[in-house]
Amino acid sequence: MAHRIAIIAGDGIGTEVMPEGIRALEATAKRFNIELEFTTFEFGSCDYYLEHGKMLPDDWFEQLKGFDALFYGAVGWPDKVPDHISLWGSLLQFRRQFDQYINLRPCKLMPGIKSPLAGREPGDIDFYVVRENTEGEYSSVGGKMFEGTDREVVIQDTVMTRTGVDRVLKYAFELAQTRPRKKLTSATKSNGISITMPYWDERVVEMAKGYPEIAVDKFHIDILTANFVLHPDWFDVVVGSNLFGDILSDLGPACTGTIGIAPSANINPEGHFPSLFEPVHGSAPDIAGKGIANPIGQIWSGAMMLEHLGYKEAGDALVSAIEEVLSAGDSQVLTRDVGGQGTTESLGKAIADAI
Amino acid sequence: MAHRIAIIAGDGIGTEVMPEGIRALEATAKRFNIELEFTTFEFGSCDYYLEHGKMLPDDWFEQLKGFDALFYGAVGWPDKVPDHISLWGSLLQFRRQFDQYINLRPCKLMPGIKSPLAGREPGDIDFYVVRENTEGEYSSVGGKMFEGTDREVVIQDTVMTRTGVDRVLKYAFELAQTRPRKKLTSATKSNGISITMPYWDERVVEMAKGYPEIAVDKFHIDILTANFVLHPDWFDVVVGSNLFGDILSDLGPACTGTIGIAPSANINPEGHFPSLFEPVHGSAPDIAGKGIANPIGQIWSGAMMLEHLGYKEAGDALVSAIEEVLSAGDSQVLTRDVGGQGTTESLGKAIADAI
Ligand SMILES: CC(C)[C@H](C(=O)O)[C@@H](O)C(=O)O
Ligand SMILES: CC(C)[C@H](C(=O)O)[C@@H](O)C(=O)O
Repeated sequence: MAHRIAIIAGDGIGTEVMPEGIRALEATAKRFNIELEFTTFEFGSCDYYLEHGKMLPDDWFEQLKGFDALFYGAVGWPDKVPDHISLWGSLLQFRRQFDQYINLRPCKLMPGIKSPLAGREPGDIDFYVVRENTEGEYSSVGGKMFEGTDREVVIQDTVMTRTGVDRVLKYAFELAQTRPRKKLTSATKSNGISITMPYWDERVVEMAKGYPEIAVDKFHIDILTANFVLHPDWFDVVVGSNLFGDILSDLGPACTGTIGIAPSANINPEGHFPSLFEPVHGSAPDIAGKGIANPIGQIWSGAMMLEHLGYKEAGDALVSAIEEVLSAGDSQVLTRDVGGQGTTESLGKAIADAI
Repeated sequence: MAHRIAIIAGDGIGTEVMPEGIRALEATAKRFNIELEFTTFEFGSCDYYLEHGKMLPDDWFEQLKGFDALFYGAVGWPDKVPDHISLWGSLLQFRRQFDQYINLRPCKLMPGIKSPLAGREPGDIDFYVVRENTEGEYSSVGGKMFEGTDREVVIQDTVMTRTGVDRVLKYAFELAQTRPRKKLTSATKSNGISITMPYWDERVVEMAKGYPEIAVDKFHIDILTANFVLHPDWFDVVVGSNLFGDILSDLGPACTGTIGIAPSANINPEGHFPSLFEPVHGSAPDIAGKGIANPIGQIWSGAMMLEHLGYKEAGDALVSAIEEVLSAGDSQVLTRDVGGQGTTESLGKAIADAI
């Protein structure tokens, strides 16, 4: 039976890298005998907003809920629509309404990609950031008092639930179990943020009891960010709250030099709702329309989607194809950001061919 | 008239680097004709806690409030006292009760110090992180409900006040004005943390109106941490909330390789209360008692203290003395962490001699 994939290209370079994402997926599907069926949607973009006054149609949930996965490009175009409207109106809706409570991002040194860190080689850095994706610091509870006066005070709640914390920890522990090093690092700040963070720590200790084979450590977020730079080889699976995970999953790919090409998965592990796969990069208005955007983030996100759909071998093969093309280093093929003179299409085609 | 300095060495290597901090200050004071008078206190350490059941005596505020500055070593010894007790019982009390609402940390590539970033030279990176130090995410408001059940929910408020936000922004803008590049970067996360962070942004826009000569930009904290690694040369003065400032002021020194030697100032700019100067590093139980701790963090903090007391020239001279000794690279003098075989004392003496 075919897997039904909803395509939402979004804005800017999202619309340029998406065709290459699909090309790579089609090539992989062919080789591994997987049936994928793509359906394209126009909503979830700022142009849709300008026409309809909203980012999504009222029945978006009904339209999308039956799909096996959502394949997203990039959303946002601040000159057209302020970011908090375009993002809370689309991506953050999907994460919440489809209960995609895991945000998963690999941080991996790739061949041919220059890391900003001195003396690091492919193989040295290879870890995952697992981020809680629905609660925590991203809450809608709070408000303002004495507005407009010198006494003005603004309050926002961080809300952690046992359900919310435990399920992301469980996912992270189980991911650690599939990895050779079986190591889990928890991001905390219980020495300063004295109510929610000690609770997070407690739940980690509790959950760890069920996974005696996993080596667990924790770092406060301040020194943890320092250690991403100083000792990125220490990490295997790193788990954090919504905010800490957000920070670490940009910093991690920055340390591997892959922030422009890293993928990300927003997962509802039970499969009650579709999961969403998107590159880490944004819509990049500054280079949009030139055909020079690097499509690897989109393609790598496709590989994560294949793995999520149950095709780990196919996903791995697609990642290997990316690595192969990067290693080959053909400047006619590679885009500018990775030292070539090629186009979105030349790089996308090369990866599809390598499959 | 003599400036009265309260000395609190604290725990672990705090007690080892403090004498070198004092030695360097005395040498500098002599050269610049400054009168400093040191008074040593035993409280604010975990040993004090073990004896008295608290980190500070009840009248600490009275005992300390008349001093011109506090010179702190390092606090914390988790095997003796849990961190949240030792820290909330000492350092965080000082910051709050003495209204040290500015936390200031330089991030600077120093000669002879290896940066983890590829291809960066002294001069390339030189900026300040200005952190709000009394409110924001470090609040004591919140609690737990449905405790011990599956419905457990834990809430902690982030509290920003106009007073609190405006005064740290003002300090940061005025600092930017003293710098050649006159540039200010604000750390935000208004695209995700949708109540407090947009408020922070608003206040930045408002404050900027009074400083038309300052170039202002802002980054969301996730990509800002990435940019610390990718483009540390972009930054001049970076201002952030209590939590964001905490993260950035560890990450910044990590990027310059100086996390073991960076200084920090907790400042009450109006001088209603004493300000506190301390190295960024902790008490380092693992190397305590060996006489090998690097005293530069303590000494550099002393330089910040001199500047705060009105002796900018003397403070600059002390920083130059540190740079001179690091440049000389004498392995008999330097401690192990910076490639030598010397001791806390040999390095401290060399810096005092260089003054
Ligand atoms: C020890 C801890 C409470 C403290 C903080 O978070 O403020 C420390 O990280 C610092 O930056 O001085
Ligand atoms: C755009 C923003 C709201 C979003 C987030 O903070 O979750 C982004 O940074 C991400 O990580 O996907």
